[in-house]
Amino acid sequence: MGARETVEVTGHLMDSGILSRVLDDIREYGGDFVIEEFDVGRDAHDPSSARITVEAPDYEALQRLLMRLQTRGVNQLSHGDAAVATADQDGVLPDGFYATTNLETQVRLGGRWYDVDNPEMDCGLVVEQATSGDVRVRTVPLSDVVRGMGIVVGAAGIQVTVPSHRPSAETVASFHGEHDPERPQTVLVRQVADGMRHARAAGKRLLWVAGPGLVHAGGVPAMVALVRGGWVDLLFAGNAMAALDVETALFGASPESNAPPGHEHGHEHRVRAVNTIRKAGSIERAVRDGVLPSGVMRALVTEGKRFVLVGSVRDDGPLPEVHTDVVEGQRAMRAEIHDIGYCLMMATQLYAVATGSLLPASVPLVCVDINPAMVTRLADRGTGQGRGIVTDVGLFLEQLALELVPDYRRG
Amino acid sequence: MGARETVEVTGHLMDSGILSRVLDDIREYGGDFVIEEFDVGRDAHDPSSARITVEAPDYEALQRLLMRLQTRGVNQLSHGDAAVATADQDGVLPDGFYATTNLETQVRLGGRWYDVDNPEMDCGLVVEQATSGDVRVRTVPLSDVVRGMGIVVGAAGIQVTVPSHRPSAETVASFHGEHDPERPQTVLVRQVADGMRHARAAGKRLLWVAGPGLVHAGGVPAMVALVRGGWVDLLFAGNAMAALDVETALFGASPESNAPPGHEHGHEHRVRAVNTIRKAGSIERAVRDGVLPSGVMRALVTEGKRFVLVGSVRDDGPLPEVHTDVVEGQRAMRAEIHDIGYCLMMATQLYAVATGSLLPASVPLVCVDINPAMVTRLADRGTGQGRGIVTDVGLFLEQLALELVPDYRRG
Amino acid sequence: MGARETVEVTGHLMDSGILSRVLDDIREYGGDFVIEEFDVGRDAHDPSSARITVEAPDYEALQRLLMRLQTRGVNQLSHGDAAVATADQDGVLPDGFYATTNLETQVRLGGRWYDVDNPEMDCGLVVEQATSGDVRVRTVPLSDVVRGMGIVVGAAGIQVTVPSHRPSAETVASFHGEHDPERPQTVLVRQVADGMRHARAAGKRLLWVAGPGLVHAGGVPAMVALVRGGWVDLLFAGNAMAALDVETALFGASPESNAPPGHEHGHEHRVRAVNTIRKAGSIERAVRDGVLPSGVMRALVTEGKRFVLVGSVRDDGPLPEVHTDVVEGQRAMRAEIHDIGYCLMMATQLYAVATGSLLPASVPLVCVDINPAMVTRLADRGTGQGRGIVTDVGLFLEQLALELVPDYRRG
Amino acid sequence: MGARETVEVTGHLMDSGILSRVLDDIREYGGDFVIEEFDVGRDAHDPSSARITVEAPDYEALQRLLMRLQTRGVNQLSHGDAAVATADQDGVLPDGFYATTNLETQVRLGGRWYDVDNPEMDCGLVVEQATSGDVRVRTVPLSDVVRGMGIVVGAAGIQVTVPSHRPSAETVASFHGEHDPERPQTVLVRQVADGMRHARAAGKRLLWVAGPGLVHAGGVPAMVALVRGGWVDLLFAGNAMAALDVETALFGASPESNAPPGHEHGHEHRVRAVNTIRKAGSIERAVRDGVLPSGVMRALVTEGKRFVLVGSVRDDGPLPEVHTDVVEGQRAMRAEIHDIGYCLMMATQLYAVATGSLLPASVPLVCVDINPAMVTRLADRGTGQGRGIVTDVGLFLEQLALELVPDYRRG
Repeated sequence: MGARETVEVTGHLMDSGILSRVLDDIREYGGDFVIEEFDVGRDAHDPSSARITVEAPDYEALQRLLMRLQTRGVNQLSHGDAAVATADQDGVLPDGFYATTNLETQVRLGGRWYDVDNPEMDCGLVVEQATSGDVRVRTVPLSDVVRGMGIVVGAAGIQVTVPSHRPSAETVASFHGEHDPERPQTVLVRQVADGMRHARAAGKRLLWVAGPGLVHAGGVPAMVALVRGGWVDLLFAGNAMAALDVETALFGASPESNAPPGHEHGHEHRVRAVNTIRKAGSIERAVRDGVLPSGVMRALVTEGKRFVLVGSVRDDGPLPEVHTDVVEGQRAMRAEIHDIGYCLMMATQLYAVATGSLLPASVPLVCVDINPAMVTRLADRGTGQGRGIVTDVGLFLEQLALELVPDYRRG
Repeated sequence: MGARETVEVTGHLMDSGILSRVLDDIREYGGDFVIEEFDVGRDAHDPSSARITVEAPDYEALQRLLMRLQTRGVNQLSHGDAAVATADQDGVLPDGFYATTNLETQVRLGGRWYDVDNPEMDCGLVVEQATSGDVRVRTVPLSDVVRGMGIVVGAAGIQVTVPSHRPSAETVASFHGEHDPERPQTVLVRQVADGMRHARAAGKRLLWVAGPGLVHAGGVPAMVALVRGGWVDLLFAGNAMAALDVETALFGASPESNAPPGHEHGHEHRVRAVNTIRKAGSIERAVRDGVLPSGVMRALVTEGKRFVLVGSVRDDGPLPEVHTDVVEGQRAMRAEIHDIGYCLMMATQLYAVATGSLLPASVPLVCVDINPAMVTRLADRGTGQGRGIVTDVGLFLEQLALELVPDYRRG
Repeated sequence: MGARETVEVTGHLMDSGILSRVLDDIREYGGDFVIEEFDVGRDAHDPSSARITVEAPDYEALQRLLMRLQTRGVNQLSHGDAAVATADQDGVLPDGFYATTNLETQVRLGGRWYDVDNPEMDCGLVVEQATSGDVRVRTVPLSDVVRGMGIVVGAAGIQVTVPSHRPSAETVASFHGEHDPERPQTVLVRQVADGMRHARAAGKRLLWVAGPGLVHAGGVPAMVALVRGGWVDLLFAGNAMAALDVETALFGASPESNAPPGHEHGHEHRVRAVNTIRKAGSIERAVRDGVLPSGVMRALVTEGKRFVLVGSVRDDGPLPEVHTDVVEGQRAMRAEIHDIGYCLMMATQLYAVATGSLLPASVPLVCVDINPAMVTRLADRGTGQGRGIVTDVGLFLEQLALELVPDYRRG
Repeated sequence: MGARETVEVTGHLMDSGILSRVLDDIREYGGDFVIEEFDVGRDAHDPSSARITVEAPDYEALQRLLMRLQTRGVNQLSHGDAAVATADQDGVLPDGFYATTNLETQVRLGGRWYDVDNPEMDCGLVVEQATSGDVRVRTVPLSDVVRGMGIVVGAAGIQVTVPSHRPSAETVASFHGEHDPERPQTVLVRQVADGMRHARAAGKRLLWVAGPGLVHAGGVPAMVALVRGGWVDLLFAGNAMAALDVETALFGASPESNAPPGHEHGHEHRVRAVNTIRKAGSIERAVRDGVLPSGVMRALVTEGKRFVLVGSVRDDGPLPEVHTDVVEGQRAMRAEIHDIGYCLMMATQLYAVATGSLLPASVPLVCVDINPAMVTRLADRGTGQGRGIVTDVGLFLEQLALELVPDYRRG
């Protein structure tokens, strides 16, 4: 083997399984390693740190392995400057580009460290110099690359920081401190409510991501109460969720909404509902004109909350506000991803995966779905900020509204 | 083809899909049919009736097809007497025995119709003559057959009656009449509560069947409140559910109880809990002696409610009350299956399937599980008395207790 | 109640469960019915027919109920002309528009019946008059409606025809005729192979719809062999499937591809693979330039087969051929939906649902997925042309290639 | 806090996630820890070792924590003798009993270390002295405890050894070395075949555990070929699997066997099949008498292979060989658990969990099921000797038979 580099990582290494994932990565990339130093704190609460020399077949493989390791929060020891290459095609990153994580990231240029704006997964890093001479480094998705941009290549000169909040540790603690440990779902609801209160108290925005399952599961009344109570600042969803919400508002719920997932009734109602909103011009206009009498979309409009709807290939219609171009849709979501303090994902895989890539790792994330496969997939992100709850979305929202909205079901 | 017979069936034939299942059965048994007469009522609420001549390759095949059709409520037109043969081995039914359904059944003997005691699936029918000369016909499972018994063979002289309650029809109606159709899970909880109230008002007993998932899902406090409120007369479960309940009472819930199904913590707690109860002599003694401080099993004992625990091959221990012989266990369950007015099955497949076979078709049945496969299997019984709800068992019980127990969570 | 209309339906009514669905529909729309006449053939193989008078609260409700019933193949008896209204907004259908099924449809205008081109679900029907005076009726999706179009409204003057092929009936028959009934999966593979051979012999095209699960399950070698053997004329997929195929070709499979669904490895490989193709300009160019050495996409290009890729909100990149606008993507799919003789859907829900809406009901359809929920949803279409197989997509393709491609795994 | 003890653990600690589980255990038991020494080898292939002082609220809690840690292979440093107490009740272990793991275990008595016979989970350890003076230590399940037995209490004087084979490590390696990494399922089949060949070459027995899903999935012909080819020495199953195999042999497969899980056909065939075997006296006699013409059970009998069938509460019948007493059934399984070199678990949870507890950790274990939840649960055992494969059992067996049985499907 040829190329090698020394890296370090700090945190609750063994505890969190990070180290074991790091070693798996090294194996997967055909590399090898020597642990130079390993400092476990003496105490249960001390972080530990490791210094590891990793080796890969060649320089290029090493660079890619180092980038991969950064998704685990592993940084290089040597602090040279980052290398920058010029994009020579629109929409294409230079060979050997640094692929980003969604961790807080710093890039060293001219001996100085710069914070990366908008950490986001699977992007490039573009270095920009203002006329003032100020340097700015930000993430750029493939589709926004413009010829001539300066793009960071290789893994040198880049540091990432894993968020210090360790949800599992504190959670488990508080969980055990409860008086009635036998009520796990109730306890979880309270923990989510606390997280939301905390984020709101800190002046942060609350982001929801929802699929049509929220409506199917009967979650609309609770969700409307949460919107009205100020617990929803922003919603990301697809045409399917919004159209089903509108359909239910216009035509009532279908009896099959209790059916096991997979049984859905004919679409005649759906298309007619979508056409009604298209005729009104927009969801917003339909609310103002009194065409849309109830539901989640209506509550968002009347409360002045924001939403981004992005289309998919199976859409009927779609509704007027839906971004039919998915790259435009991603841009619209990206533009709203700021100051998020808590993110709840309900009964959706497609939009949750999309949001998860855009969201900085520092934002606490809860995924709720009755399907364990969805939850596992969403909660299992590199740095573990996600939390999965396998439960009935309808009953979960009911309990959450009871917890957060004073007069829910009494008014 | 040789053998043929004319049968008739009455009910909401098309509506319930029964007729389509009947025709599938005929095909499956290699038979053929001619529809002689078909009388659909004119009105939406009228029952319809059909007279069908079925044909099978030979006499024996025809008899078996006719028996199968009786599981759908299809009876023969010709009213000869039933044939009776003598069992010549213990535990073995005579060739060509009539295999029972769990529908109300009548047998014609000497020109008179006799009601069958204890309808139960997959049994034989034994004809007994008391010294008084009274004839009695009852179901007999394979393992209780005794040499010399008179057993009904063939399908002649037997009539079954499909329960007139058609849960789906009324249910859907009441469902649509609700003021807030958007809350399906809440509506379902209320319907189950109504069914239970109705059964109790009619002086019937409420049967629960539960798996360890009830405890994992945090359903213990709600279940205890339901037991204390008089909403549980009888529990069928296995060692696993009872042992987990006892373990939780003695050692607290494990943090993993929120984990997706499939992750279970080490068994050290479990075995120790079981050993503690074995040392006390029985669950009941452990309650009396103050060894078992809380939980579902304790509530059943202190409220004087009945339970039947039956073992399985994976059991640790087991607990003293557990029937280690499964055939004895079935007998114990059978002995308690009387005057049941409502049956709730929570998070169990093994015990639910076992109970479903023993329970007359006339008893309303609700299966709740977060796993759709379980619910489909349990709810999909021949004559449709079952109802499946795919939801979180913990939150379902929480809502049910809020509905039925006045001071739940306020006390 | 006010409005009523008499309808008729013909086919294997009871057998197929259609009648029971029809009655459910009537209930769901708040209607009522009287069965005027019911003619069951006498024989097992005779079709039956029913004449039913349906009633609804008012004229508009009746029209909508009648449209819904047409999705089951139920037609009105009275043969007046269809009503036509003019669209007065782009992208919006007139009130009361007829919502299409994907059944063969005829519209009566000026006393003559016209066949509808391109049956497709959930569209409107536009009536066009050529300068020659010829009238043409075709489906138009919401997004393609142009102001001034003549659109059919109401349910009068429209007839649909349910495809006569009844997959279940024949299938079950041939299934039972097999020599080794114990090998259901093997038998199913052979039936699918026969269906494909039959379609190809009839000069029809074979359409595949695939998700990334096809690659994860190790189906690439078999799929490549099927493409080369001429068993794939057209592929519909998303960026995820194509990108994973390209990634695997460039970087090898990841060890996690055996993991239970939901575990996916980091995206670094994915983005780099997509960037490589973007650099080449297109998948096709990447193949020509030798950049893309293997995989399904390569095989399609080298064999000159067609594919349509449509984006979704979670996409990285996307690949150059991907339609980022989903409405454009639907148009591209629609343009390819002609002369399809068989459709196979593998490990995808999103693209399968999208395709299912576009595809005429007369095309036989098979959905294969390891997840029963997907299969149920896809196979459960109104008129039952779908068939679901719950199995491992990788092993299914392996067996299908062994069946169809003479030298597979021997060459 | 009061009680503390120093423990050590050696192995691929971080890599395997063991250390992170150890720390979770300590937290769960309310303990604390200080890492005294941590020696990571320098090299990727070196094992690491840790010396940790653990602390618990009191002596008893500490003992229980230490026992729990032993399930992870963590041993105490101090080498005093084990403590022994006398059982004073039949079927009850003394307070503070040592709860066993299924790891190789040694007990120190009188300054000497004794190997434990038959490592098995969740048992006690009984110390027996032969008249010759020889000391023997063996596992004893709760139900076999006899008053007067000497039972090990506390965690002192006990050492466990984690099996050195690390399936994941080698497996991943060999997996990557394959020529066609794109065919994971095929590769997995080959790996299982290699494991079986290896076990057989070493003179070990091959144990299978199967549920009725094996028959439903069409696995009978492949399984029969494997039995005849000498690849099945021992089968553990329930009445359901054996009865469905017998039913299929006598009456053919039901068309529903392709249905999604949860749909099962009426039991009339099943009961009749069971009755037929009961009449013959036993499965073995039914084979000898020509009553049972085909199937897995027949192949086992004609090839002289062993099987243990244990009943469950849902059983019809049961078949004569079925142990109706589950504790007796566990004893019968235990008696056969010797010299096992490989264990395959197919489509069963109940019997697989039961077998997993009885089987020493040193036996390689593969669980195959189409349901990921089953596989996760079974493969996720403390010391990681299990391996889960989510696939179609029928197609998996088909491929395995093609791999292992020379003339399969050609004869």
